[in-house]
Amino acid sequence: MLARTLIERKRNGLRIASAEWTLLMRRYGAGEIPDYQMSALAMAIYFNGLDRQELGALTDAMLQSGSTLDLTHMRAPRIDKHSTGGIGDKVSIVLAPLVAACGIAVPMMSGRGLGHTGGTLDKLESIPGFRTNLSLAETARLVETIGCALFGQTTEIAPADRRLYALRDATATVESVPLIAASIMSKKLAEGLTGLVLDVKRGSGAFLPELERGLALARTMIDLGVDHGCPVVALITAMDRPLGRACGNALEIEESIMALRGEGPADLLSVTYALGAEMLLMGGITRDREEARRKMEVAISSGRAAEKFQQIIAAQGGNPAVVDDPALLPQAAECEIFTAPNGGVVAQVEPRTIGLGIVELGGGRAQVEDRVDPTVGFVITARPGDVVREGEPMATVFARDRRGIELGLKTLSRAIHVGEEAEPPLPLISHRVTEAGVERYES
Amino acid sequence: MLARTLIERKRNGLRIASAEWTLLMRRYGAGEIPDYQMSALAMAIYFNGLDRQELGALTDAMLQSGSTLDLTHMRAPRIDKHSTGGIGDKVSIVLAPLVAACGIAVPMMSGRGLGHTGGTLDKLESIPGFRTNLSLAETARLVETIGCALFGQTTEIAPADRRLYALRDATATVESVPLIAASIMSKKLAEGLTGLVLDVKRGSGAFLPELERGLALARTMIDLGVDHGCPVVALITAMDRPLGRACGNALEIEESIMALRGEGPADLLSVTYALGAEMLLMGGITRDREEARRKMEVAISSGRAAEKFQQIIAAQGGNPAVVDDPALLPQAAECEIFTAPNGGVVAQVEPRTIGLGIVELGGGRAQVEDRVDPTVGFVITARPGDVVREGEPMATVFARDRRGIELGLKTLSRAIHVGEEAEPPLPLISHRVTEAGVERYES
Repeated sequence: MLARTLIERKRNGLRIASAEWTLLMRRYGAGEIPDYQMSALAMAIYFNGLDRQELGALTDAMLQSGSTLDLTHMRAPRIDKHSTGGIGDKVSIVLAPLVAACGIAVPMMSGRGLGHTGGTLDKLESIPGFRTNLSLAETARLVETIGCALFGQTTEIAPADRRLYALRDATATVESVPLIAASIMSKKLAEGLTGLVLDVKRGSGAFLPELERGLALARTMIDLGVDHGCPVVALITAMDRPLGRACGNALEIEESIMALRGEGPADLLSVTYALGAEMLLMGGITRDREEARRKMEVAISSGRAAEKFQQIIAAQGGNPAVVDDPALLPQAAECEIFTAPNGGVVAQVEPRTIGLGIVELGGGRAQVEDRVDPTVGFVITARPGDVVREGEPMATVFARDRRGIELGLKTLSRAIHVGEEAEPPLPLISHRVTEAGVERYES
Repeated sequence: MLARTLIERKRNGLRIASAEWTLLMRRYGAGEIPDYQMSALAMAIYFNGLDRQELGALTDAMLQSGSTLDLTHMRAPRIDKHSTGGIGDKVSIVLAPLVAACGIAVPMMSGRGLGHTGGTLDKLESIPGFRTNLSLAETARLVETIGCALFGQTTEIAPADRRLYALRDATATVESVPLIAASIMSKKLAEGLTGLVLDVKRGSGAFLPELERGLALARTMIDLGVDHGCPVVALITAMDRPLGRACGNALEIEESIMALRGEGPADLLSVTYALGAEMLLMGGITRDREEARRKMEVAISSGRAAEKFQQIIAAQGGNPAVVDDPALLPQAAECEIFTAPNGGVVAQVEPRTIGLGIVELGGGRAQVEDRVDPTVGFVITARPGDVVREGEPMATVFARDRRGIELGLKTLSRAIHVGEEAEPPLPLISHRVTEAGVERYES
């Protein structure tokens, strides 16, 4: 009766009290409320939303369904970054060691790829031996000793969120701003953070393509953070084209290693520095963005950032030698260059098509159970706005076999449009959202 | 993937094609689509509705999930009545034998009580031996031989509707006009009807209290009927007070028997004659309402209507002697009169309170599994607008024991308001809805 009454109330646009959210999620966690009631409630929330208090109560209820990291004894600021995800988005892999090398403790919880977007855990696991299924105790020890841990949501952390997320995925109720915010925040709060930086992607390859919905998510997350004593700052970044050049698990690790050595693509480094600066500012490590950026540049040029990544890899069971020799990463059996079919201007590099192309090559998941091939993917050197001549190399396909190469070339010819002229791409970083409001980002 | 895609489409306000409805319901029926997806879809339908074509396709898909009555060889018109339900609504029990006695074949499918409204099947089963779980073959034989059968939805008839209805009940998605219409019509079409008369209740005790939603349901049902070659006419009738005097299973059977003998309460007879006239007109038995009414009055005064009820009872295993001697019906152990607490005007007899009071006495169901006590209930002689003196009898409680009597008296004191003046009650029959549109009802 409880669940039906609460569904009816939300359906009618009324609110559910905090104690009711607690009871509801406790019963759901105990298997006393069936999935069919929870999915109906999720759909009612999709249409009627949650107010700030409801959102806080749902987040707390999911948080309290599991255990949390207790790092309050640490003196270092504990800050994580969350991205809404995109194609070629390997920022976490560069950022975590980089800011850890600058004095931020980074308990970084990431996810796996599903559908058109990749997942940080899948990418990391392409490093031979790398283990991401850390217990909370292991995570705490790593954060305490080396200042960083890269791990996934285990059954210990917010199990109610885990179950609800899977249900939402099956019932077309993922794209609800309050449900997204509650899901992210219930996990992030479990990390015992002192701050969170959010990378909200916009554009055709983003989870929420429209700027307005991205801003709504940023504002909702900031409110949730304020109410839970965890400050949140968000940057809105472009996902109308892939970030960096490499798209595919091992390929992205290689590019991340290059970036940690100062040799990464400019857009990847810009987004990494911008998010990193927010983390250093939030942690009180530097006073302004300029200083933060210099500090990160020195961490890279001195080799400390790359070294930190080696430490992390070693601590998590991986082969740290990949940082010095990326050729130790698994390599695709076949590769082939994709050239411009005609001369002109690169009008578009469509990220969603690239993402689905990786799934088709075996490097992503159509279903949760699918295994991922770390070797396959694309390296795309052509950028929107580039002038190309017919026959000029624009990208490379990495595949398991000839059939994969053919599929990959087809994907590229669908994704990369060469035309007469190009629409200007979205600004790489367009907005900064804080408790004070939304501002245009000045780089 | 199919279900998620269709949920997402409906969520976004787009339409689902006929072939997709067919496939969806077939897979749901086969257990290949889980309840949690169906309930999310039902909630999306609650918010975004169904267009006429979608509604037809869903109805067909549910209809085709089971078997149907084939009565096409019969010469008699085959017409059923459906009511959205109310307190004291025993119209079916009077109407079916009455119009059957006038030459209409009536395969009448009814439901059980749940929540504040009673169910025709529960009422009928208070007749000793009466069996409502007829197979389709038995139903067909009864309709062919005696012109009427009073039965419930078996597993043979629209099983997909049956499963979906139970799910909607648990997920607060019952109150959706297209889902209500599809549910009713999928069952009614299974009866092989040549016409259907709809009694849509309005007022505080109704399933859809607001006139506008009742009219929307009537229009939707009429459209569905047109598209399936089964004409539908609807009357909007009052449910701001109980219909007739008796509320409770055996008590209502007794009142129905009295009505079939011409001694029923005026409001019950008026609604019965109005619906019956629509059935006789639709069946081509009479040319106008006046003639229809006279024909029904003669059926009653001649004893043929009561005799038809006896035939039906005997054919369905019950004791037909109850029609001559209603004292053979199960009798309550205790009864007590409820008197006016003060003089004044009866301002309200709140039907929902009465309905829930019957459940409390054991005469209805809070849960589907509950057993029903046929003997308990109320006979309420006070009508809104009546002038009463302090201490004047207004109603009688029928209960199992003294505790029941106390509960029943409390229910009556909450439900019956005696005050200075009374708002005018709703007109007993206010509108008639046909394919041509809505008209005020002229009695």
